[in-house]
Amino acid sequence: DSTFDPTEHPHRRFNPLIEEWVLVSPHRAKRPWQGQVETVDEDVRPQYDESCFLCPGNTRINGEVNDHYANTFVFANDFAALKTDTPQAVTNDPLFKMATEQGESRVICFSPDHSKTLPQLSVTEITEVVATWQRQCQELGKLYQWVQVFENKGAMMGCSNPHPHGQIWSQQQLPTLVNKKQNALSSYYHKYNSNLLLDYAQREADLGERVVVKNDDWLVVVPYWAGWPFETLLLPRFAITRMTDLTAEQQRSLADAIKQITIRYDNLFNCSFPYSMGWHGAPYDGETHPEWTLHASFFPPLLRSATVRKFMVGYEMMAESQRDLTAEQAAQRLRDVPNIHYKDSAS
Amino acid sequence: DSTFDPTEHPHRRFNPLIEEWVLVSPHRAKRPWQGQVETVDEDVRPQYDESCFLCPGNTRINGEVNDHYANTFVFANDFAALKTDTPQAVTNDPLFKMATEQGESRVICFSPDHSKTLPQLSVTEITEVVATWQRQCQELGKLYQWVQVFENKGAMMGCSNPHPHGQIWSQQQLPTLVNKKQNALSSYYHKYNSNLLLDYAQREADLGERVVVKNDDWLVVVPYWAGWPFETLLLPRFAITRMTDLTAEQQRSLADAIKQITIRYDNLFNCSFPYSMGWHGAPYDGETHPEWTLHASFFPPLLRSATVRKFMVGYEMMAESQRDLTAEQAAQRLRDVPNIHYKDSAS
Ligand SMILES: O=P(O)(O)O[C@H]1O[C@H](CO)[C@@H](O)[C@H](O)[C@H]1O
Ligand SMILES: O=P(O)(O)O[C@H]1O[C@H](CO)[C@@H](O)[C@H](O)[C@H]1O
Repeated sequence: DSTFDPTEHPHRRFNPLIEEWVLVSPHRAKRPWQGQVETVDEDVRPQYDESCFLCPGNTRINGEVNDHYANTFVFANDFAALKTDTPQAVTNDPLFKMATEQGESRVICFSPDHSKTLPQLSVTEITEVVATWQRQCQELGKLYQWVQVFENKGAMMGCSNPHPHGQIWSQQQLPTLVNKKQNALSSYYHKYNSNLLLDYAQREADLGERVVVKNDDWLVVVPYWAGWPFETLLLPRFAITRMTDLTAEQQRSLADAIKQITIRYDNLFNCSFPYSMGWHGAPYDGETHPEWTLHASFFPPLLRSATVRKFMVGYEMMAESQRDLTAEQAAQRLRDVPNIHYKDSAS
Repeated sequence: DSTFDPTEHPHRRFNPLIEEWVLVSPHRAKRPWQGQVETVDEDVRPQYDESCFLCPGNTRINGEVNDHYANTFVFANDFAALKTDTPQAVTNDPLFKMATEQGESRVICFSPDHSKTLPQLSVTEITEVVATWQRQCQELGKLYQWVQVFENKGAMMGCSNPHPHGQIWSQQQLPTLVNKKQNALSSYYHKYNSNLLLDYAQREADLGERVVVKNDDWLVVVPYWAGWPFETLLLPRFAITRMTDLTAEQQRSLADAIKQITIRYDNLFNCSFPYSMGWHGAPYDGETHPEWTLHASFFPPLLRSATVRKFMVGYEMMAESQRDLTAEQAAQRLRDVPNIHYKDSAS
C-alpha cells in the first residue's frame, strides 16, 4: 500500500516551538520489553511526617524551621544552583565561551499535607498554588529576566521527597530552551502577523483529536510534535503572555485544568504518575512580547505501565527524540480513562 | 571575593557544536542525596547464555538463527524504528509539519562472548568492532545520507540485553542534532576558515586540563561544555570527516583509545559503567564537507557512585542542562583512576 498511515509508517513531526523534529515509529510499540523495570511507590503516607524537610514546623538540614503553613510555603533552596552574589565574568573565545550567572532557587510546598499530590488537592487548594506561582513571578520578575516555575514529581524524575512541592529558579539570562522559543515565536509572529500558540490552540480545539482536557479558559493537548509518550501542553484559550497577568477567575479555571490532567495521568496506569512540568511565558524584560503565550508542558517518562518507562538514550541523545505511539493514540488513551481519581473511586 | 572561581561560582558554558548553553553549579555537589538509588548489576555472566537473543547460534524472537560468529555479527533489528518501504508523504503546514522517513535499523554484536563488555575486549577485538562500523557505514552510506552508529550500555540506559552490542540506524534525512552540528560547523568554517573540532582538539591537547586519554591519533576530553557529569568527546588528532576514511592503523589506534576510556569509566565507580555513545561525521551526501571532523560522544548517567545518577529533569527539561561539578574536575577524576580494568587487577 502506498498511502501514508500515521499509525503504521515511520515519520518525523516538526516542533515549531523549538524548531526540532521528532521521529514517530508507531509500529514499535508492539515489541516486547525485557529491559529495566521501575519500582512503584505504593506507600500510604501519613499527613504529617516528622522526618520530612518540607512538613510544617519541621527543621531543615541547615537548621531553619518551616512555618506552620496552612496552604503553600516558599523558601530559598538550601542547595541552590543559582546565587545572587556571583561576580560578573565573561569570556568570548568561540571555543571556550562562558558567562557567570546570577539568580535564586526556591522551593514551593503545594500543601501542608504530606500524603497528597496535586490531583488529590481541591480546586481551591490548587488555586492557592497558582496564586503563589503568580506572586513569586511578580516578585522575582522585578529582579530577573527569567523565572522558571517547575515541578519534578516522583523518584523516577529525580525527586527526593514525596511531599507535594515544586521549584522556582530565576536568573538574569534566558536559558537555552527559552531562547529557542523566543526565536521561533518571534519569527512566526513576523511572518504571519499572528501568535503561534494562540493559532495552535484554536486549531487543536477545532480538530479535537489531540485534546485531553478542555474548559472555558484552558486546553490540554498531546501536542502534534510530542516527544515523550504522554507529553502534554497546557494552553490558554485567551491572549496572555505571562503568569503575572492571570485574573482570579483564570487562576481558578487553570487549577481546574491542572486537576483534570493530573487525575487522568494517575488513572492511566493507576499510579502516582511521575513527570516534570514547567511554565514558559514572555521574559520579564519590560517589553510587551505579543509573540508569546503563557503555557505549561508536562513531560512524563512512563510508556507501557507504571513500571516501564521510555528511555531517551542512544538514538535520542545522538540524533533526535523518537516515540513509539502517535500523539493521537496517546490523547485517546488519556481521554478514555475516568475523570475521578482512582484512589477516590476505589472504595 | 569578586574574582571568578569556576569551582565555586555558578556560570554557563557554551557548546559551540550545537549552540546551546549549560549551567554549571559546582558548589551543588555538596548537597546530600536522598533520592532514587539504582541497582548495580553484579551478575557474573556466562560466556554463552542459551536464552540470549544475541549469542551465536541462538534463535531470535522472529525465528531467525544467529550466525556462529567469531568476531562481530550484524543483523536487521527485529523491531526496527525505520523501514525501507515507507511511502513518501510531506505536509508543510507550519503548525502541523511532517515528513515520512525511510531507513534501516541494525544491531551489531561486538563479540560472541556474552560475559564481556568493550573495555574487556582486546585491542584487536575492538579493532574488529571499528572495522565493522566502517563496513556498515560504507554499505549504508551508499543508500542513506545519515548512518547513526551508537551503543546503549547498561539497564539504566534502556539496554535490555547485557550481551555486548550496539546499533546502527540509517535514514534519508539529517536528524535534528546532526543538523544543528552541520549549521554550527559550517558557520565556524566560513567565519574562521578553519575546522572547529580540529582547532578544539589542538587547544585541548595543549591545555591538558580536560584531557583523559591521549594516543598518537586520538584524544578523549571532558569537553569544556559537557552536560552529563562524566561526558566525554573522542576526537581525532588528524583531519578526517567520516568513519569510512579510517586507515587500518587509525582503526587500531581508535580501538586503543576506546579501550582506555571505557576502562577508566568502569574504574571510576568499580562497576560496568552505563552510557550511551555514538558517532557523528560528515553526511553521506557526496559533498566533501571540510567543516566536519569525525567524533564520538559518551553520555554516561552516573554522578556520585555506581548507584546514584544525575537526573536531567525539571530545570534541564524546561530550561537547559545543569551540572554539579566542572568539566576539569570530572577529567581529573577520570585521570586519577588506574588504567588497568578493576576486574583484571583484583586477584
Ligand atoms: O532499540 P532498543 O535497544 O530496544 O531500545 C533502546 O534504544 C532505542 C534507541 O536509542 C530507544 O529508542 C529506546 O527507548 C531504548 O529502550
Ligand atoms: O533540586 P533537586 O530536587 O534536589 O534536584 C532535582 O531537580 C534539579 C532541577 O531540575 C535537577 O538538576 C537534579 O538533577 C534533580 O535531582
